[in-house]
Amino acid sequence: MTDLPGTMFAVVQTHDGFSGTATGPGIDNASEWLAPAELPLPEPGPGQVLIRLRMASVNPSDLHFIKGEYGQPRVKGAPAGFEGCGDVVAIGSGAEALKGQRVAFVASGSGAWAEYVVTQAQMCIPLRPDISDENGAAQIVNPMTAMAMVDIARSEGDAFVVSAATSQLGKLMCSLGRDLGLKPIALVRRAETVDALRELGADEVLVTNDPDLPEKFAAISKTLKPRVFLDAVSDQLSEQIFAAMPNKARWVSYGKLSAEQPRLTQMGQLIFMGKRIEGFWLTQWMMSTPPADQIRVVAEVQARFADGRWKTDVSTHLPLRDVVSGLAEALKKTDGKVMITP
Amino acid sequence: MTDLPGTMFAVVQTHDGFSGTATGPGIDNASEWLAPAELPLPEPGPGQVLIRLRMASVNPSDLHFIKGEYGQPRVKGAPAGFEGCGDVVAIGSGAEALKGQRVAFVASGSGAWAEYVVTQAQMCIPLRPDISDENGAAQIVNPMTAMAMVDIARSEGDAFVVSAATSQLGKLMCSLGRDLGLKPIALVRRAETVDALRELGADEVLVTNDPDLPEKFAAISKTLKPRVFLDAVSDQLSEQIFAAMPNKARWVSYGKLSAEQPRLTQMGQLIFMGKRIEGFWLTQWMMSTPPADQIRVVAEVQARFADGRWKTDVSTHLPLRDVVSGLAEALKKTDGKVMITP
Repeated sequence: MTDLPGTMFAVVQTHDGFSGTATGPGIDNASEWLAPAELPLPEPGPGQVLIRLRMASVNPSDLHFIKGEYGQPRVKGAPAGFEGCGDVVAIGSGAEALKGQRVAFVASGSGAWAEYVVTQAQMCIPLRPDISDENGAAQIVNPMTAMAMVDIARSEGDAFVVSAATSQLGKLMCSLGRDLGLKPIALVRRAETVDALRELGADEVLVTNDPDLPEKFAAISKTLKPRVFLDAVSDQLSEQIFAAMPNKARWVSYGKLSAEQPRLTQMGQLIFMGKRIEGFWLTQWMMSTPPADQIRVVAEVQARFADGRWKTDVSTHLPLRDVVSGLAEALKKTDGKVMITP
Repeated sequence: MTDLPGTMFAVVQTHDGFSGTATGPGIDNASEWLAPAELPLPEPGPGQVLIRLRMASVNPSDLHFIKGEYGQPRVKGAPAGFEGCGDVVAIGSGAEALKGQRVAFVASGSGAWAEYVVTQAQMCIPLRPDISDENGAAQIVNPMTAMAMVDIARSEGDAFVVSAATSQLGKLMCSLGRDLGLKPIALVRRAETVDALRELGADEVLVTNDPDLPEKFAAISKTLKPRVFLDAVSDQLSEQIFAAMPNKARWVSYGKLSAEQPRLTQMGQLIFMGKRIEGFWLTQWMMSTPPADQIRVVAEVQARFADGRWKTDVSTHLPLRDVVSGLAEALKKTDGKVMITP
């Protein structure tokens, strides 16, 4: 395609591999890990597509990743960013169906924080025209994770616990839970978010710095008997919550927002109460879930965004060229996602 | 039956419920928790039997229990002790088949550290005549646990890790593992036990105070890829072992010999490596395993004791009347089980 440039602007990683640290997703200065770069335009191989970026979302997993604290190694000089949406402007063999389409994507070939991105065709979801770029750019990682995790919760009963409930993912899980007739119990950091969470679908909302939290949670746990704890924080308070849950409770960690290493104070509960501690990772879920089930989940996710049941709150639109200097500041706003634009 | 006395000697608990402490199974002075008592002879109800004790074994779970640190509450004034063997001298309705038989038992109605014990008929296993009282008195708790847990290990691959491997249960699991063609990796506290463990069936033996343990275990883990860790200790070293195990490893805690509360230093492994932490409790296993499978396991256990493949090492025979004064001292010998005799 002759209208494509030979090079592109990208925000690239300045480190290889893992850092060995575990400091959580907070960043003070993105230039510790990221740098601007002008790179040759990547070329789609067989089964791949080249996407011109419309918008990339910033997820906590992106921050873990650039800091070298994620489950996959960094590649120095490669663009950062896992998720976005854009237009397919070139295709490799076997990806003809996506030609010219606007798609949501997870970046598998090169990072999303770049003017152009190469990824596998099966990591793309064509977007309905009634879905905005903002919703399209946050279509996969959070919504699919929410769907899959609430499904786990539902398999064990009707009540479940969600930490960091004001995150985009937390809000999705609360509203999805209510829609499915379940009872989400939300943990939040700030008292001023309680009403909004209830409005959104949480059956109960607890503030993590409330000194009475343990007693309050114990009472709720006794009544509602939540069996699944969908936890993005994974700190000592998480362990306390888990310890107060009933027989056969499952602590499902899907994130590590806290750098604290939780102590297991009630090991005997694993033995005598049949409790267990495990993790959730969307990539693993996608690898182990039949395509038909995934397609069903994708269609359901998209329908929810299209009819307005779900939407992505955006705090800031941050131009690609300002990411290195401005990302840390942009992330201080906690009322929505940072969206990167070309 | 007219030859039965009206009262019996028993070692009874002096506390109710749970202690709230978590100090492990060590005891300095049994009189903190136990006292001698003369009690009315218990009477077997429907489905129960009255057993004249031949021998009761002392398991770590007994010590956790009397200290109020086990998963079940104590009853003040009731005899302590979970397991033993003896002769059925009276029966309730429905238990006729056991009349006059020598049986191994788990005490469900009253404790085993008494001249007479009442328990459910289904908690009794008639003993073959070629099995000694010593083997009979330690027939259920450890051997059944070993069988059930090695079965879990086998379901995940051929190598598995066993902590506290010089315990009776640890030794059973190592020998059973070898018999089944598996590769037990044993953790022991004392270097002088290494050869004996290898002899018994361990494929690899590591000493827990060896400063090179982490590197040695990492190398073994890389080669043998153990997926299951059968752990009686549940301390920080256990967590380190678990962290060095491969993808999809399961940390199965069945005891808490250490009072240390392990920190989870690698929470991300639960997420990205599909690892999980869980418990094992024989009672739960017996409740959730079909009777036919349990009978098969019982027969296999008994065959192993009868033909000498398994045996119970005994360190001390301790008369019932000396338990309160002498138990702490008797437990200092680590070369076998303490057996209580009437």
